[in-house]
Amino acid sequence: MSTPIRIGIVGYGNLGRGVEAAIERSEDMDLVGVFTRRDPADVLTRAASAHRMEALADYANDVDVLILCGGSKNDLPVQAPELAARFTIVDSFDTHARIPEHFAAVDAASRAAGTTALISAGWDPGMFSLNRVFGESLLPDGDTYTFWGRGLSQGHSDAIRRVDGVAGGVQYTVPSADAVASVRSGERPTLTTRQKHTRECFVVLADGADADAVREAIVSMPDYFADYDTTVTFISAEELARDHAAMPHGGFVIRSGVTGDGATQTIEYGLTLGSNPEFTASVLVAYARAVHRMNAAGQIGAHTVFDVAPGLLSPKSPEQLRAELL
Amino acid sequence: MSTPIRIGIVGYGNLGRGVEAAIERSEDMDLVGVFTRRDPADVLTRAASAHRMEALADYANDVDVLILCGGSKNDLPVQAPELAARFTIVDSFDTHARIPEHFAAVDAASRAAGTTALISAGWDPGMFSLNRVFGESLLPDGDTYTFWGRGLSQGHSDAIRRVDGVAGGVQYTVPSADAVASVRSGERPTLTTRQKHTRECFVVLADGADADAVREAIVSMPDYFADYDTTVTFISAEELARDHAAMPHGGFVIRSGVTGDGATQTIEYGLTLGSNPEFTASVLVAYARAVHRMNAAGQIGAHTVFDVAPGLLSPKSPEQLRAELL
Repeated sequence: MSTPIRIGIVGYGNLGRGVEAAIERSEDMDLVGVFTRRDPADVLTRAASAHRMEALADYANDVDVLILCGGSKNDLPVQAPELAARFTIVDSFDTHARIPEHFAAVDAASRAAGTTALISAGWDPGMFSLNRVFGESLLPDGDTYTFWGRGLSQGHSDAIRRVDGVAGGVQYTVPSADAVASVRSGERPTLTTRQKHTRECFVVLADGADADAVREAIVSMPDYFADYDTTVTFISAEELARDHAAMPHGGFVIRSGVTGDGATQTIEYGLTLGSNPEFTASVLVAYARAVHRMNAAGQIGAHTVFDVAPGLLSPKSPEQLRAELL
Repeated sequence: MSTPIRIGIVGYGNLGRGVEAAIERSEDMDLVGVFTRRDPADVLTRAASAHRMEALADYANDVDVLILCGGSKNDLPVQAPELAARFTIVDSFDTHARIPEHFAAVDAASRAAGTTALISAGWDPGMFSLNRVFGESLLPDGDTYTFWGRGLSQGHSDAIRRVDGVAGGVQYTVPSADAVASVRSGERPTLTTRQKHTRECFVVLADGADADAVREAIVSMPDYFADYDTTVTFISAEELARDHAAMPHGGFVIRSGVTGDGATQTIEYGLTLGSNPEFTASVLVAYARAVHRMNAAGQIGAHTVFDVAPGLLSPKSPEQLRAELL
């Protein structure tokens, strides 16, 4: 085994905690520490030492890859270019519409500094994106369908909790079984938003709130629920805590197409995740291994999962991969 | 659109025919012709011109990538190193145990000549291999399961046809539903060969053959059937021609593992193929696009799917991929 890859974690929420756990399972990596904007004394890690963000200046020679675990809205647009100017980084930037602009900012910083950056790793964007590219590259005459769930959506859960009369709640995105069956059969249906997914809400009412009014406010909410068939189930605070604390998610990318004189071909990639943040974290850690190798090979600048040879994700050598897994 | 990629096909069986059809659906590629050891006058292509193998010497400047469509047993071990010394090539070498030796021979020829070679493309080896690497890289604490089928196995069909008293027949490999369900559930079972797949044979008896003796000879055949639960169904020559002429195949690669303090995570990649050779051909064509770009970028020598950045498979630019598919 060669020298371990030295990893730093920036930000310590669910994702950062997942990265710490994933590094514990990676024999070729050492965790240098967690870097946080909070008071390190208040950050309860699994085992790692916690440091103030400013302390990163002292670690320039002790960290091979920084894994950025902040949010896409406020943290990563600032942190990723700033840190790419000093470190090789991986992030999970997931605001699809702003990816080109984020890529450009990180690429400029990274090229100037001779570091390597991998943006938008995770499962969507990430593994699902890869399978969209594989799908349309292998079956140019075809259609790609992405279904999400059954899974807890953080954004939709937050939207529920902002409704008057709601004391707590979660939302699950559920792919429609009929739609999935139709796609798998090779029918290549045209599906509306409403036909693809349903939304299931579990809501704790505030004292004295009117259930019907709350239900109506949720199901008619534009952008979030109005375009979907949404169910609202009222539960107690105890049930919410007991039955809805996990963060499962997943989904499918299905490419359905034809070859030759009309043979139907279907490719399906599916994830069933007991913990969404821990799986995302596992992807970030595997890509940290890849960017470390890419940087050593002189491949500087920003990259995405599309630019990374899959063998670089594995701790095994190319010879071993060919002999054991090809 | 830049200059089309000029492709030559070497060998024209089911796979070569599938490659020809796949190139028809690839707008960035032109098919230069089919090169064959048969008399070109006897080769009925879909549309391409057919030439004697020896004519390849005249095409050194007119072909960007040769796609080798011969067999792994006798053709590719000879042709791939020989042609890699003159052309950038893609092959579908699928004798798993001999891949390291094939890689070394092709790599030496290709490096000496400054060409690029991609060996063992297809779906297994190929897309399934990629998913085995992704699976264990993302979930190091886990198990990988590969199931094949339901699909027609050429090797097992040939074995049936060699049995005394058999006038014709086909064999389907079928994944066991119980085994697949157990793996999908995250149980990480230990499965014997017999538990993973069953084998279904459809056999036409020769005149006067003893059905019981034929059945017994098949189900007890070492290596091919003895380790499996095998069913033999006798059918007429008409039924064989009518119901068993297609070449469907497929299967799954499932990685099941845990993260953090025990969350179960499952990744599943599945193929349902109406035509096995046409899908393999589609993979070869997409990788021909990739090796052409790799050669232009100076990446010479032998490679496998593990070494190819997925974005290189797509006719779209990196900017387009990031904006549309990430």
